[in-house]
Amino acid sequence: MVVVMEERASEEQVQHVIAQLVEKGFDIHRSTGQLRSVLGAVGGNRSFDTRLIEVMDGVHEVLRITEPYKLASRTFKPERSAVSFDEFRVGGDEVIVMAGPCSVETEEQIAAAAAAVKKAGAKILRGGAFKPRSSPYSFQGLGEDGLRMMRAAADAEGLKVVSEVMDVSQIELVVGYADILQVGARNMQNYTLLRELGKARTPVLLKRGIAATIEEWLLSAEYVLAGGNTDVILCERGIRTFESYTRNTLDISAIPVIQKLSHLPIIADPSHGTGLRDKVAPMARAAIAAGADGLIIEVHPDPDHALSDGAQSIFPLQFDRLMAELRIIAPAIGRSICLEPVARRGWGA
Amino acid sequence: MVVVMEERASEEQVQHVIAQLVEKGFDIHRSTGQLRSVLGAVGGNRSFDTRLIEVMDGVHEVLRITEPYKLASRTFKPERSAVSFDEFRVGGDEVIVMAGPCSVETEEQIAAAAAAVKKAGAKILRGGAFKPRSSPYSFQGLGEDGLRMMRAAADAEGLKVVSEVMDVSQIELVVGYADILQVGARNMQNYTLLRELGKARTPVLLKRGIAATIEEWLLSAEYVLAGGNTDVILCERGIRTFESYTRNTLDISAIPVIQKLSHLPIIADPSHGTGLRDKVAPMARAAIAAGADGLIIEVHPDPDHALSDGAQSIFPLQFDRLMAELRIIAPAIGRSICLEPVARRGWGA
Amino acid sequence: MVVVMEERASEEQVQHVIAQLVEKGFDIHRSTGQLRSVLGAVGGNRSFDTRLIEVMDGVHEVLRITEPYKLASRTFKPERSAVSFDEFRVGGDEVIVMAGPCSVETEEQIAAAAAAVKKAGAKILRGGAFKPRSSPYSFQGLGEDGLRMMRAAADAEGLKVVSEVMDVSQIELVVGYADILQVGARNMQNYTLLRELGKARTPVLLKRGIAATIEEWLLSAEYVLAGGNTDVILCERGIRTFESYTRNTLDISAIPVIQKLSHLPIIADPSHGTGLRDKVAPMARAAIAAGADGLIIEVHPDPDHALSDGAQSIFPLQFDRLMAELRIIAPAIGRSICLEPVARRGWGA
Amino acid sequence: MVVVMEERASEEQVQHVIAQLVEKGFDIHRSTGQLRSVLGAVGGNRSFDTRLIEVMDGVHEVLRITEPYKLASRTFKPERSAVSFDEFRVGGDEVIVMAGPCSVETEEQIAAAAAAVKKAGAKILRGGAFKPRSSPYSFQGLGEDGLRMMRAAADAEGLKVVSEVMDVSQIELVVGYADILQVGARNMQNYTLLRELGKARTPVLLKRGIAATIEEWLLSAEYVLAGGNTDVILCERGIRTFESYTRNTLDISAIPVIQKLSHLPIIADPSHGTGLRDKVAPMARAAIAAGADGLIIEVHPDPDHALSDGAQSIFPLQFDRLMAELRIIAPAIGRSICLEPVARRGWGA
Repeated sequence: MVVVMEERASEEQVQHVIAQLVEKGFDIHRSTGQLRSVLGAVGGNRSFDTRLIEVMDGVHEVLRITEPYKLASRTFKPERSAVSFDEFRVGGDEVIVMAGPCSVETEEQIAAAAAAVKKAGAKILRGGAFKPRSSPYSFQGLGEDGLRMMRAAADAEGLKVVSEVMDVSQIELVVGYADILQVGARNMQNYTLLRELGKARTPVLLKRGIAATIEEWLLSAEYVLAGGNTDVILCERGIRTFESYTRNTLDISAIPVIQKLSHLPIIADPSHGTGLRDKVAPMARAAIAAGADGLIIEVHPDPDHALSDGAQSIFPLQFDRLMAELRIIAPAIGRSICLEPVARRGWGA
Repeated sequence: MVVVMEERASEEQVQHVIAQLVEKGFDIHRSTGQLRSVLGAVGGNRSFDTRLIEVMDGVHEVLRITEPYKLASRTFKPERSAVSFDEFRVGGDEVIVMAGPCSVETEEQIAAAAAAVKKAGAKILRGGAFKPRSSPYSFQGLGEDGLRMMRAAADAEGLKVVSEVMDVSQIELVVGYADILQVGARNMQNYTLLRELGKARTPVLLKRGIAATIEEWLLSAEYVLAGGNTDVILCERGIRTFESYTRNTLDISAIPVIQKLSHLPIIADPSHGTGLRDKVAPMARAAIAAGADGLIIEVHPDPDHALSDGAQSIFPLQFDRLMAELRIIAPAIGRSICLEPVARRGWGA
Repeated sequence: MVVVMEERASEEQVQHVIAQLVEKGFDIHRSTGQLRSVLGAVGGNRSFDTRLIEVMDGVHEVLRITEPYKLASRTFKPERSAVSFDEFRVGGDEVIVMAGPCSVETEEQIAAAAAAVKKAGAKILRGGAFKPRSSPYSFQGLGEDGLRMMRAAADAEGLKVVSEVMDVSQIELVVGYADILQVGARNMQNYTLLRELGKARTPVLLKRGIAATIEEWLLSAEYVLAGGNTDVILCERGIRTFESYTRNTLDISAIPVIQKLSHLPIIADPSHGTGLRDKVAPMARAAIAAGADGLIIEVHPDPDHALSDGAQSIFPLQFDRLMAELRIIAPAIGRSICLEPVARRGWGA
Repeated sequence: MVVVMEERASEEQVQHVIAQLVEKGFDIHRSTGQLRSVLGAVGGNRSFDTRLIEVMDGVHEVLRITEPYKLASRTFKPERSAVSFDEFRVGGDEVIVMAGPCSVETEEQIAAAAAAVKKAGAKILRGGAFKPRSSPYSFQGLGEDGLRMMRAAADAEGLKVVSEVMDVSQIELVVGYADILQVGARNMQNYTLLRELGKARTPVLLKRGIAATIEEWLLSAEYVLAGGNTDVILCERGIRTFESYTRNTLDISAIPVIQKLSHLPIIADPSHGTGLRDKVAPMARAAIAAGADGLIIEVHPDPDHALSDGAQSIFPLQFDRLMAELRIIAPAIGRSICLEPVARRGWGA
């Protein structure tokens, strides 16, 4: 921490700040200039609230020089991490795509979705069984029935499963069916939940909150890592800005920023990031071109009759076309994406 | 809902939209103009996702004409609501102030805080026992011990107690000690929690999320109200903007906006809203001048040694001065604020 | 400037940074810690672009320790400034109110407005002759005719005049009619205009841009001050946030922040800050309670037929009531506001 | 426009609204439902301020159903526009890249930059002669000398020239040297300037303001188009959000949104959009993958010694590599990019 004193700060004020910092466990290096004193403070607690010094008399500004997170940082672990599954890894050279409907609705729906996304090259089936809905009057998900249907559909196609946990009480249940536990944007700072997930041994997909800074996002990842669960995948899904034409503004630049600050893999969610079907493909291509390790996309066999998020779900045929476009783009950044598309049943044609 | 078709929309496209809306349970009134068709749709489900129509071919725009919330609206209940306690009400003519430390730390600390805020005119003691901290390495609260200390301190001074619940699992415990259950900004869309609080019979203080629109905030209130708990107090505590000098931007205009849209009482939190001690008093005065029903303020007997949020906590003497200023301002909007300050022990002098 | 090196930075990288800084005219103090090196750089150019160092290999972060503005800062001039007119000052103990229509429309309209606002206690008449309109198809103002009408109306009532200049080419003209030259939010970073206003000897009212940080706002003031014009009044008028219920979010906290960083007087514009008539009075009261030196308010004798901004203009009777409320609030912060309302013609009753 | 009345609106209030709308030139279609009345208003003025109705008693909400811009919309001109130069067009199948230094500094510098960007495949040389700088103490550009140097450098390489005009007074001068007149983000709502550019017969590159909505941006384009200048190229260059790690958040989703709403070509500026050299290439790739018609990129032969924006300028070798990556990506969206790179002098190797 660097404490910049005001130009007119008295010697007494400087001493008072020094005393306070020493009391908090810091070592102080003082540099007295022509205009003002600057104090360098080292040691102390990583989570020390610098505003405590900021409000002291004679203090002009306090600048933190270490990130408040540790395990999530590149400083701690310089080489990139990957989350491994049987036959592939998220965070390696291959771009991994997770796809499927917003909510699991029926056995037929999830089976059709699984077949369609598998055929196009997806490796992981997404689908919600517990849905966080802003209105209490909206469809809230099928619960365990949904999980069971999704597991069966994924197994039939050789896909992995990602599904959301909204609350500590659901972890045990979801772990029984899913290969990746998703933490939604609204729960990014649900610390009780994050702490419990740190004790789990199932990978976690941590979505960025719509108003979360990149630092806060990494701090939330830190909660899971600090609990001993090192398999964390970050997911950019749009931040809230003044622009209201799109539901959110997908922050593509977060991808290279995260890759500089952290070793954790990062994917993008162009479906929630835009909220509009015809914007999904352009933003999916953009995310991969920017270097994302993967995507999570809402694909529904019949979006017009989806029980949730139909407007941002794409048709299987659109997903096929998108995957073909991504196969062209990936090599530009030295990556591949499921080079041998599975040629099987003619779903969606 | 009003559906505006594109100028070049074909008759087939219009018919397709009409068919879709009828299928979803709406009655349609079509108005065909020189340039384009406009469809009025009535009935249907309050939480219908209008984007489903927005993505259809030939559709230019979809405009919703009813709010998605009901019980929280002035349309449903035109007269203002108040939450009543033994000797006062939040939402009446009197401005109610909740004050106390960020976290309960020791018996002495909370007792000193309770005495100080009571003397200055506060009616409710605030203090956290479970703390949502963005870093896993920060102080996380004393838990039940903290609740016990706070209850004792409040009872000794004749104060009510407000304290935060972070998770469903904490409700039963906190209800045993607190008179108001606070939902923090980060949990404003923790629907599992909101739903459970709807079943409680203890008033709820619902803070606005840092990126929540006013509509989303009222929808979260709707979750509690829909469960049968009608005692909801809203709390504006700052939204996240590009301005980083203050920790958040306290949206004072949300106060008159909420008072127009909803019957629920609304208070302001200038401590979290600014994050800086010397900005608390100006923003507290501003909130009352704008018409807020009350305030929640962090006051600590020794802010320099607070375990959390010391930088935004004010000294008891500053709180005394602020309360005196508020007594001048309140009458400007036809309100009073604890007109007879309690003259007792000489704390803080 | 403080340069924080990465933990793994090589000695060569550190030396490269030092060489670059020395070349740019800085003196360097190096502090080598257990984990990393930190470089303090003093001297150099106030407007040095710190990102130049930020992109160098081995650099973790660069922290600036001086504000980029000088003349506008409290460090440069600790005592508060006021802009003086014949019988009053903006920035003194009295709260000064500027009021009038958005645009000057007719002689009758501006005369009626002048009489109404004078009677209620305003000291300065506002009104636009050149209007920046987001649509090219909107009313664009009366130009010089409008200025002439406004001057006559103001003189008849003993009021000063504030009016907007949109372009360098208009300065000479407007100076002939107005006592204060307003720079609109959209022109806050029109540096050609600011530079010319620095040469003028007429006070400048500088509105904050809707996305301007407080630092950028003070830098724009610096342009005017650096030109030799020391009479600058700042005006907070709302920033753009994700909340769309109000047109902008009036950042009330900017008032105490500016008063800490700068010696310049600051007023608030609740009309543009909210964009809605019924929100003007609450926000005007809030601004004064927070410590603003004054207000600028749109008052129109017949808002329903205003050629611009009618929806955010208040009626003369609403303005009377507001001024009465402000007279109650001002003493709470040790200020007065036109204590002897002028009892003359019975306009508006 | 659709006017939604409150559920409790009286018949008198409805009639008052109807009368006001008729007076403003609208035809009204009333639809009286079980709960409330809804009024459809057609005709009237495109730039009518709907808030005038919004503030009337009994009105719940007013919804606009036409965009306020006309000439810029796809409704007006469904097929895409392109801006043609001798041998290429911006807005056609080929992706066009504009590149060069932030500011023209010396003859050698601009000549070296021109040669480097030409060799890599750029078609247009960028460079500033008049610089809008947030600090009055920063380098402000070389003025006409800079324009002359840039023209010579561009001619030597067979490049077109784009350069910024900051003020009406500069148009005549810049037109003499540049092929495209750039309007910077800070001037996006400088209507005096836009109006004059509408009279020019030189193409205009209109950057999006950092807090401009897409609608406001298109309205600014409308100012130029309405003046008779149909050659307008839009440029997304980042919006201001709460995230401060990057200087701005480049809104990639604005690319497909603009392409749906407007026929005008759109390019992206990843240099200003991120403000950091190592983020330029990922965001440039993302913009092209999302469908942008081109890019404008800061390339400097010696960024470490650039007089402005060196930190966000890339090295010629980085530009070469980026162009190679873009050649892989462009076909994914059916486009090409300068397929035959010019093999000439060995600059930068």
